[in-house]
Amino acid sequence: MAKDFSTRAENYSQWYNDVVKKADLAENSAVRGCMVIKPYGYAIWEKMHDALDKMFKETGHVNAYFPIFIPKSFFSREAHHVEGFAKECAVITHYRLKNDPNGGGVVVDPEAKLEEELIVRPTSETIIWDTYKNWIQSYRDLPILCNQWANVVRWEMRTRLFLRTAEFLWQEGHTAHATREEAIAETQKMLNVYADFAEKYMAVSVVRGVKSPNERFAGADDTYCIEALMQDGKALQAGTSHFLGQNFAKAFNVQFLNQENKLEYVWATSWGVSTRLIGALIMSHSDDNGLVLPPALAPIQVVIIPIYKSEEQLKQISEKVDPLIKKLKDKGISVKFDDDDSKRSGWKFNEYEMKGVPVRIAIGPRDLENNQAEVCRRDTLEKTNLHFDTLDVEIEKLLSDIQQSLFDRTVKFREANTRKADTWEEFVDILDNQAGFVYAHWDGTPETEELIKEKAKATIRCIPFNNPLEEGQCILTGKPSKQRVLFARAY
Amino acid sequence: MAKDFSTRAENYSQWYNDVVKKADLAENSAVRGCMVIKPYGYAIWEKMHDALDKMFKETGHVNAYFPIFIPKSFFSREAHHVEGFAKECAVITHYRLKNDPNGGGVVVDPEAKLEEELIVRPTSETIIWDTYKNWIQSYRDLPILCNQWANVVRWEMRTRLFLRTAEFLWQEGHTAHATREEAIAETQKMLNVYADFAEKYMAVSVVRGVKSPNERFAGADDTYCIEALMQDGKALQAGTSHFLGQNFAKAFNVQFLNQENKLEYVWATSWGVSTRLIGALIMSHSDDNGLVLPPALAPIQVVIIPIYKSEEQLKQISEKVDPLIKKLKDKGISVKFDDDDSKRSGWKFNEYEMKGVPVRIAIGPRDLENNQAEVCRRDTLEKTNLHFDTLDVEIEKLLSDIQQSLFDRTVKFREANTRKADTWEEFVDILDNQAGFVYAHWDGTPETEELIKEKAKATIRCIPFNNPLEEGQCILTGKPSKQRVLFARAY
Repeated sequence: MAKDFSTRAENYSQWYNDVVKKADLAENSAVRGCMVIKPYGYAIWEKMHDALDKMFKETGHVNAYFPIFIPKSFFSREAHHVEGFAKECAVITHYRLKNDPNGGGVVVDPEAKLEEELIVRPTSETIIWDTYKNWIQSYRDLPILCNQWANVVRWEMRTRLFLRTAEFLWQEGHTAHATREEAIAETQKMLNVYADFAEKYMAVSVVRGVKSPNERFAGADDTYCIEALMQDGKALQAGTSHFLGQNFAKAFNVQFLNQENKLEYVWATSWGVSTRLIGALIMSHSDDNGLVLPPALAPIQVVIIPIYKSEEQLKQISEKVDPLIKKLKDKGISVKFDDDDSKRSGWKFNEYEMKGVPVRIAIGPRDLENNQAEVCRRDTLEKTNLHFDTLDVEIEKLLSDIQQSLFDRTVKFREANTRKADTWEEFVDILDNQAGFVYAHWDGTPETEELIKEKAKATIRCIPFNNPLEEGQCILTGKPSKQRVLFARAY
Repeated sequence: MAKDFSTRAENYSQWYNDVVKKADLAENSAVRGCMVIKPYGYAIWEKMHDALDKMFKETGHVNAYFPIFIPKSFFSREAHHVEGFAKECAVITHYRLKNDPNGGGVVVDPEAKLEEELIVRPTSETIIWDTYKNWIQSYRDLPILCNQWANVVRWEMRTRLFLRTAEFLWQEGHTAHATREEAIAETQKMLNVYADFAEKYMAVSVVRGVKSPNERFAGADDTYCIEALMQDGKALQAGTSHFLGQNFAKAFNVQFLNQENKLEYVWATSWGVSTRLIGALIMSHSDDNGLVLPPALAPIQVVIIPIYKSEEQLKQISEKVDPLIKKLKDKGISVKFDDDDSKRSGWKFNEYEMKGVPVRIAIGPRDLENNQAEVCRRDTLEKTNLHFDTLDVEIEKLLSDIQQSLFDRTVKFREANTRKADTWEEFVDILDNQAGFVYAHWDGTPETEELIKEKAKATIRCIPFNNPLEEGQCILTGKPSKQRVLFARAY
């Protein structure tokens, strides 16, 4: 391990930055708060994109594209939305630059001032519902099940690569329905799609639940979410799905003739996940040697490193592994054979470890003699010598084992780090000394929720679905409570 | 044909708008010059994206993502680039809105003024070369072969859906090389990728060539392009690939240690195609009945329409076509079986014709009796009754025929509409009365090129590769010329 690399125990936050940097995932750009997603990081996003896009299409959705700019006045239409979104955002006021008459490069042309300022979309409900107005006349035009893959901008003051950046990439689904029930079913369906994605592809165990009113999306009647627990015991919201009621339909006057030929406002949902998921992925699995990737999202699933001294040896190894590479590719496994002569094999071992490649195969002259190869799995760093002839089958099985094992580890970790607190002291003690999720009673008021957040820096992550009812007393106010809710300090 | 649909002969421009609208491809948004790409239009873009992305990866490129914002000062760094790009663009001056103290919704917070304005990227050379500076130290770091899929904004005054919009989607490749020769080879390689894509996927014949200095990309040493001819005889630039020399490396001080251990500036290329290609696709093949799509880019390649009166008949037809649908899907052909009971079959025929679905299969009770189906190809509207048992094989062949036939038609059209002019009168006469490409002599000066553009509204589209040398006299000035160049009026 490179000595300029922090361990999680030493400095978790620095460790995260080091993984992002050393695994070559992303970096800060010349523009405050905006990141450059480097090829290896973007390849992970492409894997996420492809898997999610397939899941969206299988559930009947289509993609579309809406403008990046939103007229300022649109934000004022929905009373809650404006509070949540029309604040820290990029504002376009002019549409032309001109040469500085004093020779100082280019300056903003004061004559090219927009009549109404435009906002770079922080989220697209407003512009999309303004569009849907023209698409919907009758119940026959419903449902509309659109998704868009796009960039959005929120002028965050404190940014961290992937976790919180001014510009980020995401998808936002925006659906329109004839009934409340159908919209709620859609909201739930998409939350389940996100949870499946998190568990099956990211190998991250998540809690599904509903947000408390304070934590709801601005403009939603209800926000469902999936919450994951990072290795430092802080929670991370990994995806949200919002039941928007008729709020945006009313704000943009989107009505339809229902089957009884009566005008009614349309019911809405929206749901999204973003490049933030890459942050969650890193913090769920990686270790003090660098990135650890679940095979389902790894751009390179298997790397084969030849150990050789002569050209002749390399040639023999290449000939040996060529059929293996073909067999693995036929199974849909992505393989890289790294015969780059300018790097030593020790350097390569470190490099692919740092980049989280799930399986490394090393093969040298002695392995050729013994008809075997050394196989190392990234999650446990365990090495085994395997018989060469059945290697393709073993590797396939190993990838599947790694995927499952990473997931299981997050389940165990979450279970081990989910506690109950019955008093304020206990609550704060757990947060300060153990972190993790804490189930505690809360009196159900936004005021208490706010006060808990202020005093303990912890928020209600969600009220889990099928949360058992249990009489109790609010940890802060002592007032009666009907159920425990899930608290944590969070990203 | 719907009577609210223009023909090409009546009003070509209106016909184009009607196709875009009636085929449900895109529409104008509430934001001036920005379009909404509707699901069917976006599905075509996805097909283009997937095909191009595969071609880029097969030629060794990787994707990455760079910020949407560019500091204003970056544009002043490269002298020619600033003239071309830092003019009509969206300028961010503020980063916060606040509630209007007078209750008028939200207003720009005057205290949240940026120290330096940010520009929404019109193209990303500047921000990318500012980034590459940190990626490149030695020849071992080269080449860098990055592509990005992104949205860009150019504040166009006159916009048309797909052809010219303020915001559009595109890909931009940005590569860095150790030698001039390698960069030029890359520029050519990518132009050939674009030409292959245009011809094999879009079924559009293109001319490959190099731009005259006036038409070069701002900041390039050379711009290569592919030019297509639309049905109204106007040319459309369908893709460009730029050899940027060391211009951006010098502007952003990107040097590397070469193999002789000497510092040298890096050589660059950039290349891009955009959603404008959808405009080219529409205008190349479509007819007075609506959109015509080449099978390789059609979201739905085959539509099957059952003709029935009773539920029982529909059931029989469904049972008959189910195995066909499976066989077609197994061949990778996208099929839609439209058994929507709320629409009449006549309406469906029109709808899929309008949407350019390459092959329509209609099947009714009599067809069942005769074990056949009526197959209609969209390009010629020709109908044939085909034996049902071999339909999958016939359809596969038909799709390939349509793809080839559409391409051949554009080759013939281009050849028939490429003329030579030897005098100014002849030149203007062809442009005014026949349109198309015109080969004519030009004295090689930017001044004459500009004058021809002013007087005849025609531009030099390109100097085709392998253009034969031929002594002659400039059509405008009569001065000596060594070769004819390709003129046209253009989109």
